[in-house]
Amino acid sequence: MPIASPSRTFAPLNPPQRLLLGPGPSDVHPRVLAAMTLPLLGHLDPAFVAMMDETKEMLRYVFQTKNPMTLALPGTGSSGMESAFVNLIEPGDSVLICVVGYFGERMVDMTERLGAKVHVIEKPYGEAFDPSEVRDAVKKHAPKVVGIVHAETSSGVLQPLEEIVKIVHEAGALIVVDAVTSLGCVPVMTDEWGLDVVFSCTQKGLSCPPGMAPISFSPKAVETIHARKTKVPNWYLDVSLLSKYWGSDRAYHHTAPISMAYALREGLSLVIEETLEARFARHVRNQKALKAGLQALGLTYVAAEGFQVPAVHAVRIPDGIDDLTIRKRLLNDMGIEIGGGLGSLKGKAWRIGLMGQGSKERNVLLLLGALEVCLRDAGCSLKPGAALEAAGAAYAG
Amino acid sequence: MPIASPSRTFAPLNPPQRLLLGPGPSDVHPRVLAAMTLPLLGHLDPAFVAMMDETKEMLRYVFQTKNPMTLALPGTGSSGMESAFVNLIEPGDSVLICVVGYFGERMVDMTERLGAKVHVIEKPYGEAFDPSEVRDAVKKHAPKVVGIVHAETSSGVLQPLEEIVKIVHEAGALIVVDAVTSLGCVPVMTDEWGLDVVFSCTQKGLSCPPGMAPISFSPKAVETIHARKTKVPNWYLDVSLLSKYWGSDRAYHHTAPISMAYALREGLSLVIEETLEARFARHVRNQKALKAGLQALGLTYVAAEGFQVPAVHAVRIPDGIDDLTIRKRLLNDMGIEIGGGLGSLKGKAWRIGLMGQGSKERNVLLLLGALEVCLRDAGCSLKPGAALEAAGAAYAG
Repeated sequence: MPIASPSRTFAPLNPPQRLLLGPGPSDVHPRVLAAMTLPLLGHLDPAFVAMMDETKEMLRYVFQTKNPMTLALPGTGSSGMESAFVNLIEPGDSVLICVVGYFGERMVDMTERLGAKVHVIEKPYGEAFDPSEVRDAVKKHAPKVVGIVHAETSSGVLQPLEEIVKIVHEAGALIVVDAVTSLGCVPVMTDEWGLDVVFSCTQKGLSCPPGMAPISFSPKAVETIHARKTKVPNWYLDVSLLSKYWGSDRAYHHTAPISMAYALREGLSLVIEETLEARFARHVRNQKALKAGLQALGLTYVAAEGFQVPAVHAVRIPDGIDDLTIRKRLLNDMGIEIGGGLGSLKGKAWRIGLMGQGSKERNVLLLLGALEVCLRDAGCSLKPGAALEAAGAAYAG
Repeated sequence: MPIASPSRTFAPLNPPQRLLLGPGPSDVHPRVLAAMTLPLLGHLDPAFVAMMDETKEMLRYVFQTKNPMTLALPGTGSSGMESAFVNLIEPGDSVLICVVGYFGERMVDMTERLGAKVHVIEKPYGEAFDPSEVRDAVKKHAPKVVGIVHAETSSGVLQPLEEIVKIVHEAGALIVVDAVTSLGCVPVMTDEWGLDVVFSCTQKGLSCPPGMAPISFSPKAVETIHARKTKVPNWYLDVSLLSKYWGSDRAYHHTAPISMAYALREGLSLVIEETLEARFARHVRNQKALKAGLQALGLTYVAAEGFQVPAVHAVRIPDGIDDLTIRKRLLNDMGIEIGGGLGSLKGKAWRIGLMGQGSKERNVLLLLGALEVCLRDAGCSLKPGAALEAAGAAYAG
């Protein structure tokens, strides 16, 4: 049994240093990185179990909920979406997905795979739904589950949810909310609004590395899961099994990602130290300044006025400017990452993230300065310093 | 919209220091922990894409395969099992699962959830299958897919695979192999043996934190996936989508767990530096010494002679000795974790792991000394130093 050698030699791991101002991952706090170097515990160690209990309580704070079934899944944010739907939906169920961008489209793909009868209402990238549009669709399709994205990472749209949740509940349906880009950046009022399943990620508003998916299920969602006629066709993301693992009987399921769990707990500690109120205010303050600066650079927002999420600024690339030329210059010469467009906005928009730890004045000013230089080099006629002046005025005002 | 405060205050994260000699997670090399503190890259950053390409090549070495579709899933080892089956199986497919312990039982649960016609052959914990038993079952059930565990973490059984794979292939079926506890500890000869899907975890033989699942698909497995009549009912673990993300077109799927990916690459570097040959020899050497010592303590193996995996030593708890008393003493007084029994061995067996980085003389001697003290305190009549003497003789001989 001769062992084959590796195909070649490999240099030591040496990633370049970037400032992450794209749609995620975003910059991680040094305390979070340090937490990952703490000694590993076994996942059934009483000390680790206590830590998971604390994490659940901390998550309840960021989700603003008392839901007992609030935990972090052992996968990235997308596993949160998968888990929400695979646990609620049984084949043949009527599902309504409200699509305002790429992540709504993903909900359609996922729920179709689960054998649901999927009904879709759709808005162009940049717009949000008016509650009346959801009312009409709910009336027409009588869904068991309605899926909607709170903050569309692809278009930078923040979808108001309160009215829509009321409509969904009046129709006897459950609402699944993608809070991947909103949690930790803007209010996600799970109990006050009545969200049935709400999930997020670790690498945006919580400023941890990607790798886990915080998720919360309302008592009604749990009831629905318990009343299933069929077993959840996904062992890994079955929340009944997961909640026994996270619960008092501590029944073995998967092996929790220990170091990522440390990171998440440290990230949540930082949120609690800052308080959600201060964190939301900081995101709004930096949003205003970045927006003033980007507009001074002649960039227009994809998201309609009044519906722009502070976490991701999606702006249209000016005519005659090449997407990749600018993004490569920012990345290679200046070590700054911003995101390109997704879905129908590919090549047509940039997405600038100010999320969690990354939402700070220093980053706003640096990005505006760098972008101005790049745009001027690419032939844009811009008044030197206009963006910084506008941002400065926003901060002052 | 008043924000509710956290339920209480939380102390800083401060996990106790443990020596992890259970069935996983196992000890992590300091270089792996350090890798996780490297600056985060965006998951579409060319520098990160290059790192993923390197990781694929490194994984091909540890799996001993040329399979292009070799990658690491964004979930723990169980997500590897889920991905293997959900990609290959369509509702109504005939599946044969060969069960010799807890993780075989998990395969049954998972595949039933996918709507397969699941046929099971079973052996008591501690035994392995004889190829003839698999031949009979394959003849009877004509499965499309056969699932089997290479190293059963619950019983410490190493299942020889070469003959079984031949039988499965002669019958035109595909074989799915759980190498969670074998990869990096004992040879997993993917191409030589002809494994169709083989998956593992990061926290055992590769000495990383838990959180990713290395997996490899043979060209025939890929063909089978491409020939599906139905979409994979699991968006998150659909390998067609995952392979586009890990492949040259780099199509956006999930957001890779960046820091965990750093850890995995560093763990793989350590394997390459040591070489698989030296690593396997080290595991066998420490297995012999631990076994000699455990037997000198009067402990008997669950796994039959000749079928014991070096990575996990499952031994029966002597009559009159209480499982938890001993394990709590080891954990709380000595900071050493060993595992309890799983499934039908709950309360009846201990599982001692010597995996990857953790398989070393120092750990063998420490564990034997500590266990002797605990057992003597619990009333076992043992000759002082007998375990260490036996282990020493094994190392010398």
